[in-house]
Amino acid sequence: MKDDKIVDVIIVGGGPIGINCALECKKNGLSYVVLEKGPLTNSLYNYPKNMTFFSTSERLEIDDIPFISKNPKPNRDEALEYYRRVTTSNKLNIHLFEKVISISGELGSFNTKTDIAIYKSRYIIIATGFYDIPKNLNVPGEELPKVTHYYKEPHLYVMQNVVVVGASNSAVDAALEIWRKGGNVTMVVRGAEIGSRVKYWVRPDIDNRIKEESINAYFNSEIEKIDAHTVTIKTPEGYVTIPNDFVVALTGYQPDFAFLKSTGIELSNDSKKLPNYNPETMETNVAGVFLAGVICGGMETHKWFIENSRIHAKQIVNHIAKVEAVKS
Amino acid sequence: MKDDKIVDVIIVGGGPIGINCALECKKNGLSYVVLEKGPLTNSLYNYPKNMTFFSTSERLEIDDIPFISKNPKPNRDEALEYYRRVTTSNKLNIHLFEKVISISGELGSFNTKTDIAIYKSRYIIIATGFYDIPKNLNVPGEELPKVTHYYKEPHLYVMQNVVVVGASNSAVDAALEIWRKGGNVTMVVRGAEIGSRVKYWVRPDIDNRIKEESINAYFNSEIEKIDAHTVTIKTPEGYVTIPNDFVVALTGYQPDFAFLKSTGIELSNDSKKLPNYNPETMETNVAGVFLAGVICGGMETHKWFIENSRIHAKQIVNHIAKVEAVKS
Amino acid sequence: MKDDKIVDVIIVGGGPIGINCALECKKNGLSYVVLEKGPLTNSLYNYPKNMTFFSTSERLEIDDIPFISKNPKPNRDEALEYYRRVTTSNKLNIHLFEKVISISGELGSFNTKTDIAIYKSRYIIIATGFYDIPKNLNVPGEELPKVTHYYKEPHLYVMQNVVVVGASNSAVDAALEIWRKGGNVTMVVRGAEIGSRVKYWVRPDIDNRIKEESINAYFNSEIEKIDAHTVTIKTPEGYVTIPNDFVVALTGYQPDFAFLKSTGIELSNDSKKLPNYNPETMETNVAGVFLAGVICGGMETHKWFIENSRIHAKQIVNHIAKVEAVKS
Amino acid sequence: MKDDKIVDVIIVGGGPIGINCALECKKNGLSYVVLEKGPLTNSLYNYPKNMTFFSTSERLEIDDIPFISKNPKPNRDEALEYYRRVTTSNKLNIHLFEKVISISGELGSFNTKTDIAIYKSRYIIIATGFYDIPKNLNVPGEELPKVTHYYKEPHLYVMQNVVVVGASNSAVDAALEIWRKGGNVTMVVRGAEIGSRVKYWVRPDIDNRIKEESINAYFNSEIEKIDAHTVTIKTPEGYVTIPNDFVVALTGYQPDFAFLKSTGIELSNDSKKLPNYNPETMETNVAGVFLAGVICGGMETHKWFIENSRIHAKQIVNHIAKVEAVKS
Repeated sequence: MKDDKIVDVIIVGGGPIGINCALECKKNGLSYVVLEKGPLTNSLYNYPKNMTFFSTSERLEIDDIPFISKNPKPNRDEALEYYRRVTTSNKLNIHLFEKVISISGELGSFNTKTDIAIYKSRYIIIATGFYDIPKNLNVPGEELPKVTHYYKEPHLYVMQNVVVVGASNSAVDAALEIWRKGGNVTMVVRGAEIGSRVKYWVRPDIDNRIKEESINAYFNSEIEKIDAHTVTIKTPEGYVTIPNDFVVALTGYQPDFAFLKSTGIELSNDSKKLPNYNPETMETNVAGVFLAGVICGGMETHKWFIENSRIHAKQIVNHIAKVEAVKS
Repeated sequence: MKDDKIVDVIIVGGGPIGINCALECKKNGLSYVVLEKGPLTNSLYNYPKNMTFFSTSERLEIDDIPFISKNPKPNRDEALEYYRRVTTSNKLNIHLFEKVISISGELGSFNTKTDIAIYKSRYIIIATGFYDIPKNLNVPGEELPKVTHYYKEPHLYVMQNVVVVGASNSAVDAALEIWRKGGNVTMVVRGAEIGSRVKYWVRPDIDNRIKEESINAYFNSEIEKIDAHTVTIKTPEGYVTIPNDFVVALTGYQPDFAFLKSTGIELSNDSKKLPNYNPETMETNVAGVFLAGVICGGMETHKWFIENSRIHAKQIVNHIAKVEAVKS
Repeated sequence: MKDDKIVDVIIVGGGPIGINCALECKKNGLSYVVLEKGPLTNSLYNYPKNMTFFSTSERLEIDDIPFISKNPKPNRDEALEYYRRVTTSNKLNIHLFEKVISISGELGSFNTKTDIAIYKSRYIIIATGFYDIPKNLNVPGEELPKVTHYYKEPHLYVMQNVVVVGASNSAVDAALEIWRKGGNVTMVVRGAEIGSRVKYWVRPDIDNRIKEESINAYFNSEIEKIDAHTVTIKTPEGYVTIPNDFVVALTGYQPDFAFLKSTGIELSNDSKKLPNYNPETMETNVAGVFLAGVICGGMETHKWFIENSRIHAKQIVNHIAKVEAVKS
Repeated sequence: MKDDKIVDVIIVGGGPIGINCALECKKNGLSYVVLEKGPLTNSLYNYPKNMTFFSTSERLEIDDIPFISKNPKPNRDEALEYYRRVTTSNKLNIHLFEKVISISGELGSFNTKTDIAIYKSRYIIIATGFYDIPKNLNVPGEELPKVTHYYKEPHLYVMQNVVVVGASNSAVDAALEIWRKGGNVTMVVRGAEIGSRVKYWVRPDIDNRIKEESINAYFNSEIEKIDAHTVTIKTPEGYVTIPNDFVVALTGYQPDFAFLKSTGIELSNDSKKLPNYNPETMETNVAGVFLAGVICGGMETHKWFIENSRIHAKQIVNHIAKVEAVKS
């Protein structure tokens, strides 16, 4: 017999994977609430305005609901629309702008406290992604308003001196886009070259721009400090100070490890900070608490993405449904 | 007991409504084949390149499969993609580029002859729309290559003298689009003014263009004849001959009445040529033959469109499924 | 003989009209600097993401440079790109992110003080628009973070209770767009109906949405106060308090009258606050100081827009060039 | 003294380079007529509907008129709009749908005969490109309606068996696009692999599709014959006959050599058929007859394209203007 005041599953995070978990719960007759601290698919909402996914739209689909996009690879706006329509068509139970503060209790009787209420549930799924907490530069001047860890659109930087920190796909996309709109771009790259995961269709573009000196690049280099009108860079040839109007630091993001730990989830002791979970059921060392999506990778935030973590929802919810079936 | 060599339903026409019928058959466990003489959703394929629907995408959905489009009202390309994905996701059984020649037989044992094969079926659904047979002008010169009944895109008409015949939504859209791209447009309109069904957000635009004489218009007028470099128009003030490079005759289309009659379906004797069918089951006077979509309206081709004829598929297939259930 | 340290013209504001003035100066051999406190075309940059202009692209062109846009009416991104390309192609001399603090001096020797430097010039053109200073509601709670005077994009409001204040084109556009993306929209309108300047192709849409109660609307009503989770509205039937997550107050903007006054420009004493200028030369009561663009209308911010104030640049610069020619 | 009935320059071909020549004539005060046998920029008009240029829009500009396109690389529709606006803004004198039959006469008094009139001119510029005459397969069945040398859009091929002949950029683009929309694609490639000029950002995509057998490919192979429902391919392993609905033969195009020869222009005797012209003035061995654009490359149609032949117009017209200046 079920207690009326308790839901089967609390899902923390209203991104694509959280939505996917909600859909699976619904299909399996499990009661659930999704708690999302921002708008629907908050991370996608904060993505760069012109962002194009690396995957085709088919691979971003959840529950085989067709994701129609004109070009093979959809953009941010199409993805916002797709996941919104999946949510509203299926009347999913999502609380937006409600932030989870803490999780306590144990398997069968968890308490999830938000800034508004407390929810009781038998299970918890954490699908909070990684886009909220940037990996900081930790240099003087990082707090200046001209520094951002979230790139939005290039027009702001027209005719400006812009430093882009990083050499990942997102850093390279930003550098190219700003340069194309007339910004004067300098890249500061920790490694010896552009990141090895930069997509093959982008790689020659950035390599050529750097070679022809349309875009300046300092490799094996790091930001030393940021001042109001300059940036100082530590390069193999010594310190270089250049005029600067904006710093776009795209050095990656990380999961909310403090939240995971406060929930009792163990992290590996190495730099990867891998959370402890069973890859078959996605259940963590805390019985009844599951992980889904990018958060599973710890600091290796490139390991899991929508395309390959869509299966988590089914894994988790099938497991829960099986356990519940045995009980009843 | 069912005969292996006979399908339950032959669906003639692979447009949105034919696809919808196929989906309903599949969901109800009825075997079926869709026969389409052109590519998938042939009529949409032949629509103007920049055509925007008058309905929002939600109202063009079939079987509640979300139709994602960025703008409220989708365009031709998005609709092509949507119905294609619905078809392929559901693995519908559609024969493209296979033209139905004739239907014979009776309820329970129909023979549908195409240019490739003969199909036996218990039931027939005709969902062939109306876009194949234009309502002709019936004037000398209509056969010239410069005359078309299907408008595609404006660039062909840049800097040319173009006559647009008609005052419907499609005629008005074409006239405005050609004018915007630098064509010299003259409208020839049978009635006293722009058609009353022209959408409210387009009406003032065309009215103002005519008023300011950016677009010329002859009302209460008809094409008298078309010559290589001119068109002669019969106007209330007498005959007018104007220089002309292209004639875009958008005077409407009509269902294939000859095909309906050859199948035994009765048409009303008036100018509407309304086919005889039961509005609850959509079954015609020929037992076992059903109509779906725009074809139901006879010459009144504006009466039925995707939005309001999406229900036909369910009406028909539910009726067939009920009859079959009683039999077994 | 000209002093090397003085430019002919300081142009305050780097929007379309300021850019236009710069182009005219360049063509007439006048030296100039444009001072813009934000990014290039700052107001357009802050426009709603999906904003479409009411004018065709031809009417937004400056100096007959073709403005290519696929649809007849361009959107924000196309306009950003157009004015950017006009600026960079012509190598216009624009200082971005440099805010003008004050103007002093007189015809022939003005001093323009910014947050960075002081510029000497013979003439001043003020083309600062009106989009920086919203007309406030002046009600308790207006300072809450959930209240904005600048609408950006609808996704933030998915599944939220949103009050839109105002009934202008921008308020109506926002209300419709938010509703289409699944927001629960209530309009609060001071007048008895939707604004009379709302475009004819939008008007029936909003009227129908209100009539069918998809969008709620309180007419002859005003916001009384805004609380964290509610809004209280003063209506003809008394006070109404409704649940509320966001307030989008689109009640218009106004020129920076304090700046005009500090420069010595007289304003009419009525509610229009019309600045004193000669409509033929655009010169204000302060000899050598000119106005261009929307700012000329005072509180009547709908009077001047890009389309009809493109002529100001030529009027002003021709006048200056003629005066200078006489002098030399 | 100039004869009223003679123009300075007849330009054959109304594509980007012909338009460019017209602009240069206009700027240099030379009278001219452009003769184009189809619509404006006929070749671009016949390009694939979703075609994207390999060059950025800046490099496709003529006469420094800004080519605004949202994405770095413009598509067909944007290019049509750009060259159209350049033409109409500058009121260029272009006769569309007027086909040149022959050119006779000599420097100073040429006669250009079209299907409508005869034009007298001092000079001739031939800028007719190469897109009208496909390099044929010369196999039985090539005349069937299911065979095309001009790919338009993928929807026609949904769920069909399609053979794409060739391995150039356009063949690869078509193969990928048709496959993405659900066509069953087989490539037939004369060489041992995909063409070496296929762009780096497309190459891995097609290589991977072939490797994973999503797209079939026969290398070192040629079409042997085309039948109504099959295609027979000569492969290194012998003849293979496969089911087939459509053949898209994208094996390249060639200039109209017959026309060049009839005008007296010499071609090299090798397979390149290089026309005889002076690379500094672009004047051919026929004094007063000039070549511009892709046609200069003979069979090497990849050598010249808009980006690198934009300079021809200036080269030619400056030369003519200089000669004429000396005369007067």
